[in-house]
Amino acid sequence: MIYFDNSATTQPYKEAVDSFVKVSSNYFGNPSSLHGFGEKAERLIMQAREQIADHLGVRSNEIYFTSGGTEGNNMAIKGAALMYRNRGRHIITSSIEHPSVKEALLQLETLGFEVSYLPVDSYGIIDITALEREIREDTILVSIMHINNETGSIQPIGKIGDILKSYPKAHLHVDYVQGIGKVPLNIAEHQIDLCTISSHKFHGLKGTGALFIRDGVHISPLLSGGNQENKMRSGTENTGGIVAMAKALRMTMEEMKANGGQLLSIKTYLMKELGEMEEVIIHTPVEHAAPHIINFSIKGFKAEVFVHALEEKDIYISTTSACSSKHTSVSGTLICMGVAEKIAKSAVRVSLSYKNTMDEAKIFVTAVKKTIIQLRKVMKVK
Amino acid sequence: MIYFDNSATTQPYKEAVDSFVKVSSNYFGNPSSLHGFGEKAERLIMQAREQIADHLGVRSNEIYFTSGGTEGNNMAIKGAALMYRNRGRHIITSSIEHPSVKEALLQLETLGFEVSYLPVDSYGIIDITALEREIREDTILVSIMHINNETGSIQPIGKIGDILKSYPKAHLHVDYVQGIGKVPLNIAEHQIDLCTISSHKFHGLKGTGALFIRDGVHISPLLSGGNQENKMRSGTENTGGIVAMAKALRMTMEEMKANGGQLLSIKTYLMKELGEMEEVIIHTPVEHAAPHIINFSIKGFKAEVFVHALEEKDIYISTTSACSSKHTSVSGTLICMGVAEKIAKSAVRVSLSYKNTMDEAKIFVTAVKKTIIQLRKVMKVK
Ligand SMILES: Cc1ncc(COP(=O)(O)O)c(C=O)c1O
Ligand SMILES: Cc1ncc(COP(=O)(O)O)c(C=O)c1O
Repeated sequence: MIYFDNSATTQPYKEAVDSFVKVSSNYFGNPSSLHGFGEKAERLIMQAREQIADHLGVRSNEIYFTSGGTEGNNMAIKGAALMYRNRGRHIITSSIEHPSVKEALLQLETLGFEVSYLPVDSYGIIDITALEREIREDTILVSIMHINNETGSIQPIGKIGDILKSYPKAHLHVDYVQGIGKVPLNIAEHQIDLCTISSHKFHGLKGTGALFIRDGVHISPLLSGGNQENKMRSGTENTGGIVAMAKALRMTMEEMKANGGQLLSIKTYLMKELGEMEEVIIHTPVEHAAPHIINFSIKGFKAEVFVHALEEKDIYISTTSACSSKHTSVSGTLICMGVAEKIAKSAVRVSLSYKNTMDEAKIFVTAVKKTIIQLRKVMKVK
Repeated sequence: MIYFDNSATTQPYKEAVDSFVKVSSNYFGNPSSLHGFGEKAERLIMQAREQIADHLGVRSNEIYFTSGGTEGNNMAIKGAALMYRNRGRHIITSSIEHPSVKEALLQLETLGFEVSYLPVDSYGIIDITALEREIREDTILVSIMHINNETGSIQPIGKIGDILKSYPKAHLHVDYVQGIGKVPLNIAEHQIDLCTISSHKFHGLKGTGALFIRDGVHISPLLSGGNQENKMRSGTENTGGIVAMAKALRMTMEEMKANGGQLLSIKTYLMKELGEMEEVIIHTPVEHAAPHIINFSIKGFKAEVFVHALEEKDIYISTTSACSSKHTSVSGTLICMGVAEKIAKSAVRVSLSYKNTMDEAKIFVTAVKKTIIQLRKVMKVK
C-alpha cells in the first residue's frame, strides 16, 4: 500500500498508540477527581501540555485540549466572536479556508456578524493589500489558515500579524492544522492570538487536538460545563489521547529535523515528473508551498475516476479535501485561484508524510503514467 | 485498590481498548475519503452506529457521534435553542442539572433566552407540577437529566414526556449519561427528542460519546465544517473510539442483565450499613434511585478530609461530582434538596460499576468505620 493521503489523515505512530493504551488502562482516573488516582491523570495532562507548549514556543497555560481541528476552529472563531461582540461585529477571512472555518463564519453571519472574504491569486495566496483595505475599527477577528489543505500554499501570516499591530481590537486566528510539523510557524513573533492544531494530522490519534489561546485573550466557551481546561473547554479530558498527542508531536518535530530534506526532495521529484506529463496541470505553486502537498489535474479525467483507478494499484490519493470528497462539488479553492471548472473537476491531491519514500514516489509516477494510458483506452478519451 | 468513583469515570474494558488499537492501527483512513481505505473506516462507523442505535431502541440515522457528554449536552441545548429561536426563547430545566447543561443554559441567557429552573424535593426529584406551571407556548426546549450524578435520583422522564405531548413546539432533551447501562430509559416511548450519552461512563474510552437526535428534529451545529455526521457534527471521526464505544455499550448491557441484581445488592448492603452508622446521613433516596450511586454525609468531617483518608487505604470515592470537586464549592444539588450547608460540606459519593464486588463493599464499610475513629482522634472532633 502506498498511502499518499496524509493531509486527510495519517497513520498513528505505534508509540502514540502504545502511550494511549498504557495511560487509558493504568491511569484511567478522572483528572478532575480530588483523589490521588485522578491527580496522576491530571499530572500526565500537565506534562503533555508543557511538552506541546514547548514545541509551539508558547506557555503551557496557553494550550487548551480539544477533540480536533474542527472543534479548535469553531471554538476559536465562535468563541472570540461571541466574547468580543460588543466591540464590533466584523470578521475577515480568506476565500479558501477549511470548511470548519468557513461554515463557522456562515453561522455567525446568521447571528448578525459581517464577514469579509479576501481573494487569493493564482498561486492560492491571499491578497495582503485586500486585508489592508478591508480591515476596520470594528474588526474583531481575522482568521487565516497557515497552509491550505488542498494546494499546500503558505499564507503570509507574518505580514498579516504586522498589519494587525495597528488594530489591537482585531484578534488573529490561524488554522495551523496542515502546517504543524511540516512548516514552522512562529506563533509568538507573529502575534497570533488563537491557533488550531489536530493530532491525527501528525500521526497522533483522531479525536484529539489543541487550541492555543494567548494569555489575556478570552473566548466564550463552545463546550461549557465542569470548568476543565481553565473554563475554556469543559468535558472529561481524554488523558490517553492527550499524552499520545504530545508523543506524536515530539516525534514529528524530530522527523521534520531529520527527514525534512527527504520530504522536500520527494515532492520536488513528483512536481518535476508530473510537470513533464502532457496531461497534467499542477496547481500547487513552486514557491510559498508546503513540502507535502501537490495538487494537480489530469486533463480529460474526472478526479474520482483517477482516484479509484490508482486505488486498484493499492495507491491512495484524494480528490480535493477528504471532508468534501463525497459531495461531488468542485474544489472552491481552485475556483478561487482562477482554475476553470472543467480543470478543477480533474484535480487530485497527493499528500505526503515523513513515512513516505522516494521508492514509493517512483512507483507512483509509473502508476500515474500507466493509469492515464489505461483509462484512455477504456474511456476512449480523445 | 477499591475504585468506587465510577460516576466520575470508569476503567475501560480491555476489549474496548483492544478494539481501539486494532481499528486505529489498521483502519486509520479518513472515513470521509473517497477511496476504499477510507470506506473501510466508514463501514466500521456505520456498524457501530447500528449497534448503538439497537441498544437504545432507536434508528441508526438518529445517532450522532460526539467527544463526550459535555459536548452532547452543549450540542443538544445550544443547537436546539439556536435552531428554534424564532419559535420562542423559553427553556425549562431542573435546578440540579450537570454543569454541562447548567452552564450551557447560562450562556443562552446572555443571548436573550429565558430559562426556568424547576425545584426538586428532599429526594432530589423534580416537582412535576412545577413543569406544568412553567411550560408556555413559547417554550422550545425542556432539558431534564435522567439520573442525577451526585445523588442517583431518577427523574420522572415518562411523566415529562406525557406533559410535553400537548406542547409540540417544546423539544425534550435528556442527559442520560449516568443512567445508560444502569437504569433503562425508553427513548421512543417517552418521546425524547435529544438524548446524551458518554462512553467513559460505561467502560468505553474518554473523548467519545453520542447524541441521539430524533428523526425530524434539527439543531444548529456546534461544530460545523466538513459535514460529517449528516452535517450535525463535523470533524474527522474518531473511528477507533466509536468502535470501542459500541463494544463497551454491548458489554455493559450484557452486564446489566447478568449482574444488575448483584449491583443492587451491593448498594442495598452499603445503604444499610452506612445508615446504621450514627455519624452518617444518607442523601440518596431509597426509591427512585439508581443502583450505583450513594451520597452521604459524615457529620463533623469535611468531605475532602474523608476522601483523602480513605485514599490512604487505597479506596477511591469522591466529594460531589468530579468536575466541581476541585472548586471547593458545596454541592448545589444537595442545597436544592434542602440539605443544610454544613451537612452538604460533609457529603461524599460512592459510585459503583459491575466490576465491584460485595467483598469490596465489606472492606469499604470497615474502612469507613475505622476512618471515622481515626479522624476523630486526630481532629479531636467531639
Ligand atoms: C486546514 C484544516 N483545518 C481543519 C481541519 C479539521 O481537522 P479535524 O479533522 O481534526 O477536525 C483539517 C482537516 O480535516 C484541515 O486540513
Ligand atoms: C450527568 C452527567 N452529564 C454529563 C456529564 C459530562 O460527560 P463528559 O465527562 O463525557 O463530558 C457527566 C459526567 O461528567 C455527568 O455525570
